Amino acid sequence: MVPRAPWPEPDWLSGDGPESITVLSTRIRLARNLAEHPFTHRAEEPERGEILEEVREAARASRSLSTPRILRLDRTSTLDRQYLVERHLVSPDLANARGPRAVAVGKGETLSVMINEEDHLRIQGLLSGFQLRDAWNLVDKLDEELGGNLDLAFSPKWGYLTACPTNTGTGLRASVLIHLPGLVLTKQIGKVLRGISQVGLAVRGMFGEGTEVMGNFFQISNQTTLGLSENEVIESLGRVTRQVIDHEQSASEVLLKSAPHQIEDKVFRAYGILRHGRVISSQEVVSMTSALRFGFGLGFLRDRLDTHRLNRLMIETLPAHLQRANGTRLDQAERDYRRAAFVRSLLGEEPDAEA
Amino acid sequence: MVPRAPWPEPDWLSGDGPESITVLSTRIRLARNLAEHPFTHRAEEPERGEILEEVREAARASRSLSTPRILRLDRTSTLDRQYLVERHLVSPDLANARGPRAVAVGKGETLSVMINEEDHLRIQGLLSGFQLRDAWNLVDKLDEELGGNLDLAFSPKWGYLTACPTNTGTGLRASVLIHLPGLVLTKQIGKVLRGISQVGLAVRGMFGEGTEVMGNFFQISNQTTLGLSENEVIESLGRVTRQVIDHEQSASEVLLKSAPHQIEDKVFRAYGILRHGRVISSQEVVSMTSALRFGFGLGFLRDRLDTHRLNRLMIETLPAHLQRANGTRLDQAERDYRRAAFVRSLLGEEPDAEA
Repeated sequence: MVPRAPWPEPDWLSGDGPESITVLSTRIRLARNLAEHPFTHRAEEPERGEILEEVREAARASRSLSTPRILRLDRTSTLDRQYLVERHLVSPDLANARGPRAVAVGKGETLSVMINEEDHLRIQGLLSGFQLRDAWNLVDKLDEELGGNLDLAFSPKWGYLTACPTNTGTGLRASVLIHLPGLVLTKQIGKVLRGISQVGLAVRGMFGEGTEVMGNFFQISNQTTLGLSENEVIESLGRVTRQVIDHEQSASEVLLKSAPHQIEDKVFRAYGILRHGRVISSQEVVSMTSALRFGFGLGFLRDRLDTHRLNRLMIETLPAHLQRANGTRLDQAERDYRRAAFVRSLLGEEPDAEA
Repeated sequence: MVPRAPWPEPDWLSGDGPESITVLSTRIRLARNLAEHPFTHRAEEPERGEILEEVREAARASRSLSTPRILRLDRTSTLDRQYLVERHLVSPDLANARGPRAVAVGKGETLSVMINEEDHLRIQGLLSGFQLRDAWNLVDKLDEELGGNLDLAFSPKWGYLTACPTNTGTGLRASVLIHLPGLVLTKQIGKVLRGISQVGLAVRGMFGEGTEVMGNFFQISNQTTLGLSENEVIESLGRVTRQVIDHEQSASEVLLKSAPHQIEDKVFRAYGILRHGRVISSQEVVSMTSALRFGFGLGFLRDRLDTHRLNRLMIETLPAHLQRANGTRLDQAERDYRRAAFVRSLLGEEPDAEA
């Protein structure tokens, strides 16, 4: 069971990775399946129980996961599952599925394994900032450890076999969560995103496939899992991401030069609203935090903010996080009120005199 | 000549009058004309010069005005005339007219006399808060002093004769500048304003006839100058204003009870924007100040605000005031930027770290 108290912070939230103002996090996941069982969706419930058992044992034996927390999602409340989704440890699909399924979470939440998602295993590495190579090395090592204790479905011709053919081969999806306010404000984002698609990469919203783009946050990831090695995929995504970061930085600098007061105003209004507002939706926090992050990148508010706090604003204001922190279920109106209070405290508001 | 430096603050800005959160100021003006001269619009320029001379001498002799500043508007820059309009010492009409015309301003700007407006004399008394009786007494006394040295056009049948028949009789217009956010938010304002019209009073915007209603500020004044004594007019306006204040207070209390978080949010967002914004128009200041004033009336921000500061936010952010305070002409973009800086300093913002 997920404890009622909030978990310790995930390591990636620290914001201490390279380029972490622009790149929130780097994620790598591998899709793997057990050779001796049908894919999750074809397996009956008892068999899914067996799969879970086997993977759990392998996870426990893994040195990289070092005694992971293992959470059975079929024995977890809706709120706690939502909490795990908000932390990017569990996909919405796995949260909403039925039957035996789990997630194994390593120290600092850097490594984790979803069990009985679309594939039997979804191995994930999540790091602060722009660290594709390091994330890959961690995930690769964990994959080896798990593979040592599990009989994984692998074809010499096709590579790793997966439930959906779009993952067959490496089973690898590498992605960066990137903040591009400068490109959005200068209206260059369309062109940049088209360029990304043309080199075979995909762009999605913050919580992955099918989710909305909010607050100028984009997820860029590879599409290809066949015909390219892991190293080639990572190198290509890395190269494109580097270019996008550079574009973003030029766009921001141009903006600051051409309309300094308007940019300053945008940043400080967001700060004023976050620092003094009393009712704030999740979506508004994302949008205001985007303005703050943009300003922080341009050199504003350096003595009041840091990437760690900007990241916390994004995650800890999400509905399940807010409810866990308050130790109780809250309806939307209550959440919006408590969220504003949390945001104020995070931004170190001086005490306000009230009625 | 108006000195380049800002004038000392007008006394009414202090906000120390009764009901001064709701009623910004009380104003009484008397229209008077010299018997021996045609009305301003019918007088040739040399004659208007004579009128000005005569009235100026009488103003200088007045004990109530106690050595007034006398400003010839035909020798004053556009900016300085605008400054006087913003301070409610000169009407837009007088500011924009041509030829010999002036304003005589007494200590603290409580009493003043426009010379060669529509009427030869427009005697004005302006006090903080809701003080009809006191304003009337001051203006009445000044009228007597001036009348002692001037031959005023008066008919035993019609009373004081004026250029426009709507002022004939008492020549008196009494008004209160009143802030009614509660009635606006609860959508009762229409009904209340209709009620006011039905008892023969007029409602206008902040700068008098033909000006827009901004930030929930309304000017309520009498229409009638014939058939009612000065005391009757003042009593009637006083009675109605008292009722409107009471309505406003009930409406505000109902709002605070029914949607406390939303009200609190509205107030503190305005505070956050004023305190941290970098580009702010006059109109936005009025609208945000309205929210602050509303909140202050409900008991919020008591240790950060006072009526004096709320009043200063309204007046000192106006274009001419801003330009005078900065000692230079500013275009609109510069004004919006300097205005935001002034507002922040007035609200005692802690220093912001910038790029």
